[in-house]
Amino acid sequence: MKCNEAYTRRVFLRNTGLFAATAGITLAASGLPKFATPAAAKSYDKWPYTKLNMDEVANIAYENYMDLFCTSTVLKGIFTPLANSVGSPYKTFPVESMKWAHGGIAGWGTVCGTLVGASTAIGFITGDTDTTEAMSNDLMFYYANTVLPGFKPAKGKWAEIKNTTKAGTPMCHISVGRWMQEEGVAFLSNERGERCARVAASIAAKTAEMLNAWDAAGGKYTPVNTPLANVMTNGITSQNNCTDCHGKDVPKPIMAAGKKD
Amino acid sequence: MKCNEAYTRRVFLRNTGLFAATAGITLAASGLPKFATPAAAKSYDKWPYTKLNMDEVANIAYENYMDLFCTSTVLKGIFTPLANSVGSPYKTFPVESMKWAHGGIAGWGTVCGTLVGASTAIGFITGDTDTTEAMSNDLMFYYANTVLPGFKPAKGKWAEIKNTTKAGTPMCHISVGRWMQEEGVAFLSNERGERCARVAASIAAKTAEMLNAWDAAGGKYTPVNTPLANVMTNGITSQNNCTDCHGKDVPKPIMAAGKKD
Repeated sequence: MKCNEAYTRRVFLRNTGLFAATAGITLAASGLPKFATPAAAKSYDKWPYTKLNMDEVANIAYENYMDLFCTSTVLKGIFTPLANSVGSPYKTFPVESMKWAHGGIAGWGTVCGTLVGASTAIGFITGDTDTTEAMSNDLMFYYANTVLPGFKPAKGKWAEIKNTTKAGTPMCHISVGRWMQEEGVAFLSNERGERCARVAASIAAKTAEMLNAWDAAGGKYTPVNTPLANVMTNGITSQNNCTDCHGKDVPKPIMAAGKKD
Repeated sequence: MKCNEAYTRRVFLRNTGLFAATAGITLAASGLPKFATPAAAKSYDKWPYTKLNMDEVANIAYENYMDLFCTSTVLKGIFTPLANSVGSPYKTFPVESMKWAHGGIAGWGTVCGTLVGASTAIGFITGDTDTTEAMSNDLMFYYANTVLPGFKPAKGKWAEIKNTTKAGTPMCHISVGRWMQEEGVAFLSNERGERCARVAASIAAKTAEMLNAWDAAGGKYTPVNTPLANVMTNGITSQNNCTDCHGKDVPKPIMAAGKKD
């Protein structure tokens, strides 16, 4: 669901300048208020990268899900082939150290842990804050708007499942809840575990695809979606499913710095 | 706000066995369904630790907020003193690589980025998945139930602000939205930046306090809150503010594995 359209259009028009300022990969735009103009994109030592086989990445993420859960198994899927081809630092990085992000951070149902694992890997590999932000943002959009899981093993490792669903959000709680309702199973079921293992495989593979494209383009990434568009359009960090929680009473945030709307 | 009480009690009683199974730090409990009984807690090489000065950690996190945003500045606050006392791997870790988690992951308003930075640091330092999960879970509770920011500099670096608020959730969107409403300012304002810089300082200091206690106890951590209690009580990854989004119509998830409720 989209935010109240009239409201969104009004806010959008008022912020067209700000919005346009983010219409590239450069986030340190001159049209932003002082506080939102931090130093330009930061580059740092990136980890060596070699092209990934998407099927291999997906299979490793899937096979290790029950042992590692969503975040760490995505890291395992991406880092294992790179540990083989490149070695350190992939070889020594403890993918288990990020297990806490499973289930929307220790089971709190916020962001799907697969996206935390994927973005962490992207951050190490691209060596650039703005590139990572753009890819992470595109992954959030992809997760919210794609029927998942796309990955389907020849035979379910823990259970056979029937349904795939579109979450409409990157939130674990809503994503898994919508699927549980379709499938008619409990959270603490092998079916739900199987589903999340397949989602982890799907997101790991998508991340590998994005990284391969970035690598093939000589370390350049063309964003599919405008970074920070949600913030600029809605006047607050947000998704695009306002009515999911607010119903018809979507609040009108203050849009101009320091002034009541 | 709490979930519908009658509902919660009913579910809670039905799941007392499961709930009790998590009433310690050991998450791999025998009372859980097969899928939820992964291998026991994983230990891995932990990063060397020396006691942190909470004020120093808070000040570094605060000072670097505008440059790094919430996640990376919490990492900077914790890692800078450790880089000085211990050296590698703190010295070479690119804290900027996690900047993408700001604003609830690239501005999507999900989990507050300070909690991602804090949990990432905890994961490297404790070297144990269950200890990290318990500390991350306690931080989520702390963030949701504490009036923030607690950190107050002698003079605001970017603005002076008046209000402190309790989010009731670890979600960036709701946390910052409630504060913006109290303060009467826009998201893209220096006041909001100042507030989030102080929240980052507060969470970084709390993390240092928890790590110091863990270290002083010889690497043992006593959870304040039961890990995975939200999952066990609500039958899905979740918070405890169900009515915030669901109103009076809090859905009843299927609780028994493989069966409709």
